[in-house]
Amino acid sequence: MNKSVIIVAGGMGTRMNSTIPKQFIELKGIPVLMHTIMCFHHYDSGISIRVVLPSDQLATWEGLCLKHSFKIKHECVAGGKIRYQSVKNGLNNLSAGILVAIHDGVRPLVSQLTISHCFNAAEKYGAAIPVSDVHETLRQVQGDKSITVNRADYRLVQTPQVFLSDILLESYKTPYQESFTDDASVIEYCGHHVTLVEGNRENIKLTSPVDLKIAEALLK
Amino acid sequence: MNKSVIIVAGGMGTRMNSTIPKQFIELKGIPVLMHTIMCFHHYDSGISIRVVLPSDQLATWEGLCLKHSFKIKHECVAGGKIRYQSVKNGLNNLSAGILVAIHDGVRPLVSQLTISHCFNAAEKYGAAIPVSDVHETLRQVQGDKSITVNRADYRLVQTPQVFLSDILLESYKTPYQESFTDDASVIEYCGHHVTLVEGNRENIKLTSPVDLKIAEALLK
Repeated sequence: MNKSVIIVAGGMGTRMNSTIPKQFIELKGIPVLMHTIMCFHHYDSGISIRVVLPSDQLATWEGLCLKHSFKIKHECVAGGKIRYQSVKNGLNNLSAGILVAIHDGVRPLVSQLTISHCFNAAEKYGAAIPVSDVHETLRQVQGDKSITVNRADYRLVQTPQVFLSDILLESYKTPYQESFTDDASVIEYCGHHVTLVEGNRENIKLTSPVDLKIAEALLK
Repeated sequence: MNKSVIIVAGGMGTRMNSTIPKQFIELKGIPVLMHTIMCFHHYDSGISIRVVLPSDQLATWEGLCLKHSFKIKHECVAGGKIRYQSVKNGLNNLSAGILVAIHDGVRPLVSQLTISHCFNAAEKYGAAIPVSDVHETLRQVQGDKSITVNRADYRLVQTPQVFLSDILLESYKTPYQESFTDDASVIEYCGHHVTLVEGNRENIKLTSPVDLKIAEALLK
């Protein structure tokens, strides 16, 4: 089955205390987003790559690709105000009958194994997302109180979230709901089932300066 | 109020793929456990420090302290088969009317601010634990199915967990229950209330080789 990945990079630098959007911050000399693109290119050099960026960052990105002589072929799409809209823009003109991964632009540490798990399970079951166990005691807050819950019953969700394009295209016709925190929640809202596969612990989302330090160490 | 910390270091190297117990693995040239002890000594050089170790590791630890000329005063106690028993051993002969922190030996990245938040809140309210927000989408597994839950309603629990010693000593008279995943769950079982305070994101528990790499980066 043909494969496609939509890399959503809509972030600003706010929580990074940076004026540079977090996907453009350099890790080991190149922007985070280039590392992320490379993960998918290494997985399958024939995969079709689409990058969704805020419209006012498209020119900057083009400049960065020139500066770093970044040659991996990819298409750029302007994002929307919220993640849901950005993904929707990324889905424009996508073919039916293919597998589509949606991935966070600021997760440059996704492993080849995680990507492969997700595509394989999605081909078989229609939709697959990578998860990891919760390693700390977990509490649920209820008003002023909080209780310990059984952490073995919970999973932390990563990306790429991979789907048969037909399911995704149909589901993204639904108007936005507040409960849509990721792509899996959109297709589940439309009655589809999502399969959980094992992610990799290093596959963190870079949102704070601490995460950048961690990523720098893990890329070594 | 007088302060005391019981540092529980009962782990083996299993998940670290190491024959060295994880608390003895070196980070920046000294064992993890020494970093952890230093965090509390730097917070308050008058704090009473007790370290709980498996009985067959006590001699090794003594040797490591000599080798590294580790001078921070602390008492060593032999642990039990499960964490609950190790903490209980650590509480032996503890005075009433003091504040006691229980801390994981393999959390060497706890900040001074986190320790201070916990002691201050415990002095005021009797029991305080540090928590951090959940940064990923969170799913709850129910048999074959799983659903997305609102991550804003959940917190990840760290240590030190700090208590008035009277509450802790009384609660640890309760026979062990499977639901006792941390010290807070023991005192709650006995009807006491726990206050949540803000932890620090770097305060990770070192359980896998990935965590060691992360800790090495964060200690720089």
